[in-house]
Amino acid sequence: MGDLVEQLRSGLPAEAVVTDPDITASYRNDMASFCEAGDPAVVVLPRTVEQVQHVMRTATALRVPVVPQGALTGLSGAANAVEGCIALSLVKMDRILDIDPVNRIAVVEPGVVNAVLSKAVAEKGLYYPPDPSSWEQCTIGGNIGTGSGGLCCVKYGVTAEYVLGLEVVLADGRLMTTGRRTAKGVAGYDLTRLFVGAEGTLGIVVRAVLALRPTPPPQLVLAAEFSSVEAASDAVCRIMEGGHVPSLLELMDHTTIRAVNALANMGLPGSTQALLLAAFDTPEPSADLAEVGRLCEQAGAVAVVPADDVAESELLLQARRLSLVALETLGTTMIDDVAVPRSRLGRMLSGVSAIADKYGLTIGVCAHAGDGNTHPVVCFDAGDPDETRRARESFDEIMALGLELGGTITGEHGVGVLKKEWLARELGPTGVELQRGIRSVFDPLGILNPGKVF
Amino acid sequence: MGDLVEQLRSGLPAEAVVTDPDITASYRNDMASFCEAGDPAVVVLPRTVEQVQHVMRTATALRVPVVPQGALTGLSGAANAVEGCIALSLVKMDRILDIDPVNRIAVVEPGVVNAVLSKAVAEKGLYYPPDPSSWEQCTIGGNIGTGSGGLCCVKYGVTAEYVLGLEVVLADGRLMTTGRRTAKGVAGYDLTRLFVGAEGTLGIVVRAVLALRPTPPPQLVLAAEFSSVEAASDAVCRIMEGGHVPSLLELMDHTTIRAVNALANMGLPGSTQALLLAAFDTPEPSADLAEVGRLCEQAGAVAVVPADDVAESELLLQARRLSLVALETLGTTMIDDVAVPRSRLGRMLSGVSAIADKYGLTIGVCAHAGDGNTHPVVCFDAGDPDETRRARESFDEIMALGLELGGTITGEHGVGVLKKEWLARELGPTGVELQRGIRSVFDPLGILNPGKVF
Repeated sequence: MGDLVEQLRSGLPAEAVVTDPDITASYRNDMASFCEAGDPAVVVLPRTVEQVQHVMRTATALRVPVVPQGALTGLSGAANAVEGCIALSLVKMDRILDIDPVNRIAVVEPGVVNAVLSKAVAEKGLYYPPDPSSWEQCTIGGNIGTGSGGLCCVKYGVTAEYVLGLEVVLADGRLMTTGRRTAKGVAGYDLTRLFVGAEGTLGIVVRAVLALRPTPPPQLVLAAEFSSVEAASDAVCRIMEGGHVPSLLELMDHTTIRAVNALANMGLPGSTQALLLAAFDTPEPSADLAEVGRLCEQAGAVAVVPADDVAESELLLQARRLSLVALETLGTTMIDDVAVPRSRLGRMLSGVSAIADKYGLTIGVCAHAGDGNTHPVVCFDAGDPDETRRARESFDEIMALGLELGGTITGEHGVGVLKKEWLARELGPTGVELQRGIRSVFDPLGILNPGKVF
Repeated sequence: MGDLVEQLRSGLPAEAVVTDPDITASYRNDMASFCEAGDPAVVVLPRTVEQVQHVMRTATALRVPVVPQGALTGLSGAANAVEGCIALSLVKMDRILDIDPVNRIAVVEPGVVNAVLSKAVAEKGLYYPPDPSSWEQCTIGGNIGTGSGGLCCVKYGVTAEYVLGLEVVLADGRLMTTGRRTAKGVAGYDLTRLFVGAEGTLGIVVRAVLALRPTPPPQLVLAAEFSSVEAASDAVCRIMEGGHVPSLLELMDHTTIRAVNALANMGLPGSTQALLLAAFDTPEPSADLAEVGRLCEQAGAVAVVPADDVAESELLLQARRLSLVALETLGTTMIDDVAVPRSRLGRMLSGVSAIADKYGLTIGVCAHAGDGNTHPVVCFDAGDPDETRRARESFDEIMALGLELGGTITGEHGVGVLKKEWLARELGPTGVELQRGIRSVFDPLGILNPGKVF
C-alpha cells in the first residue's frame, strides 16, 4: 500500500493522489448504494492522458485493481470501489477539445459533464442528443461506460450511436486509438462500440470523438390521461405503428404521478392511472400532436391535452424528469431498467403491478414507453429486513418477466454489480464464455473493474 | 477431400453439396476479381441453421477453412475462396421470417436480397435504409459481413445501425444469439456490432433482427454544376455547416459524368467538372432545395437545377447509380473507398486528380460527398503489366492520402484481401494485436475466412 501510493505519486501531482479516508470514502459508491462496495486504497484524479497511463502502468506492475469513475451517478454499482483498489476518477479531465460544425463532431475528455457539452454545442447550432436523467451531473465518460440513454432515444438513439472514435488507455498503460473522425468507416472490428457499455472493464476512455446533429426545432408536448397502463401502452403501439416519430414518448404510472405531485405540486392529474407524454420536434409539431391525440383517444384516453407552447411543454417534461427523485421520497429505492419489445409493454406493466401486489410493495413505474424501456422503482424500508428481502425478490421477478417477454434486463443503466447474475441468464453460457474471452484479451491480469458485469 | 465431402453429405441434402468444378469455379471470386483467390474444394448451400451447424462441425473436425458467401457482389475480395476451402453460400437461406410494424423490426435469414427486403417492408409502410449500389443483387448477410453503406447514409446511417440482434453459428458449430429485439439494450459487450463488418471471420450469421423506420416522404433532388471538385466540396461543407439534413448528397466528377453519358445518354452536362446531387425527403423538400441551391451558388455553382418532381429526381439518381458500371466500360477497374472528414473532401479530390496525372491514368470519382466517402475508380488495361502496376500504386497512394487527411481506408466496402496490409497501417500494432486476440477467441483454429482482413 505504501509502495502503491509512492509509485503513483512518482508520476502524478501531489493533489491528484488522495489517501485521506474521509475523502476516499466518498468514492466508494455510485447511486446504487445498496450494492456491495469496498474501500479504495487510494483515489487518483489525473488531468492528462500520460497521468492515466502512469496509473495503469503502476496498477499493472503491482497487480492492483482499478475502478474507473465519473460523476458516480450510475444506478448499477458499476463504479463502486472494490476493496483496496485504485479509484480512478476522470472528472478532472473535463476539457472540450473541439466542436466542429462542418464535420458535426465534438472531441472531448471523459470528465466533461453531459449538460456542459450539450450547452456548448447548442451555442454552435448543434445537438448532442443523449440525455440521461442525471445529465446535469453525469460525465460523457460515464455515459460511454454505461451506454446511457435518456428521454430522446425513441427518436435519436442512445450514447453508443454518437461515439465515433475513442482514445483508450489499456490495462498495461498503452494508448490505443479506435474508430474514426469520419462519418463512415469499417476498418476492422468495431472496437469503439465494444468499449461503449463495457463499464470500464476493457480500458480507460481518455478521449472521445462524438457525432453531433443540427439543433432540431423546439419540441411541443402532449399529455394524455388513461384509466389503465394497458390502455396507455396500446396508445404507444398505435402511435408507433402509425409511422409517427415522436421526439419523446414517456409514461408515468399512478404511483409516480402522485409522488411527483407530492414533491413539487405540479398539478398533474392525480386520479389518472397512467399519463403518456408525447413530443414532436418536427417543423409543424401541432399537426403531429393532433394526429397522435386522436390515436390516444382511440386507445381510450380519458383526456388529451396538447401543450400550447414550449414553456408549457417544458413544465410537463420537468414533471417527468422529477419522477425518480419523487419516488425516492417514498423510501429506499431499487430502480429496474427492463426493456421489452414495445408491443409487450402493456403485459410488462400489468405484470409489474401484479408483482407489487404479490410482495405487498409500492413499485412506481416511469418508462421510456416508445422504446419499451421501463423503470419499475421498488420502494422499501431498508431498515426492515423482510421488506428488503421482498424488494430484492420483486426486483428479480421483474427482470425474469422482462426476459420472458423477449426483453433485456438492462435498456440503458448497465449491469454493474446489481445485475451480474442476471446478465449470465440473459446471455447464456456460450455468450458469457465469449465475453469473458474478450475481456481477457484486453485485461489478462484481471485488474480492470474486477467483479463487475460478469 | 473424399472424407470432407462425405461428412458434409451426411448432414446435408444431396443438392446442397456441390463438387462439380464447372460450378464450384463460379464461387471463386467476388467482384474484386483481381484479388488473390483459390478454388473451393466444395460449395455448400444449406437451407437451415442446423445444416450450417453441421457444416461448421465438419469444418472444425477436419480443420478445413470455411469462406462464407452471399451474392458475391463485394468489392474487396472478402468472399474470395481460399484454396481447398468449403465455400459456404448462404443464398438459399432467403426467408423473411417476420416484419413487425409496431416494433419496427424485421427478422430475416442472411440470404435475403436487400431489394427484396426493402420492397417487402415498404408494403407495410416501413423503410430499410441501407442501399448499397448492388442492392438488387446483394444479400443482407453480405451487407452485415461487410458493413455496407449506400446513398442514404448521410441521413440514415449504415448497415451497422440497423442490426439489433443476430443468431450466429460459431466456428465449432455452436449456435449463439446476440443483441436484442428491443429498441434499447446494454447487456454485456456489444457482440452484435462486433459481427457487423467482421467479413465472416468471427462466425456465420444465420439470422438477423433488423431495425426499420417509417417510410419517409418521396425525395426531391437538386443538381448543381461546378467548375471544379473543390468548389463542389465547398458547397458540401456549407450545406452541412448550415444544419441541413439531406437524404443524399452525392458527387460525380467530370470523368464519371462523361462515362455515364457515353453509356446511357442521360443528358448530363458533359462540360461540367463536378455535379453535386442533393436530395431531401422532408415534408417540404422544395423549400430545402431552394436553400441548398443558394448555398451551392455561394460556393460558385455555375448552374443549379432542382428537379420538378419525383420522376425527374429518380432520373438523376439513376445517373448516379450507373456511375460504377459506366466507369467499368473504361477498362478494368479498382474501386477505392476512402472516407475523410467532410471538411477535407476538397483536398482529397484534388489529391486524387494529382495522383491520376502523376501515374498517367484515368481515375473517375463518385462520392457519397455528405459523408466524405469517396470512390476513386482507377481504370486500367489489365493486359498491360506496367499500367497494372501503376494502377495498383495509385490505388495505394489514394489510401495513403486518405489516412494523411485523417480518414479511413474503407468507408463501406470492407478490407477483404484488397486492403489487409493497409488495415494494419490504419490500426497500428496495438490495434491489430487486440483485433487478432478477439479473432482467436471466436476462431481458435483459424478456419473462418483465413487470410482475410488481417
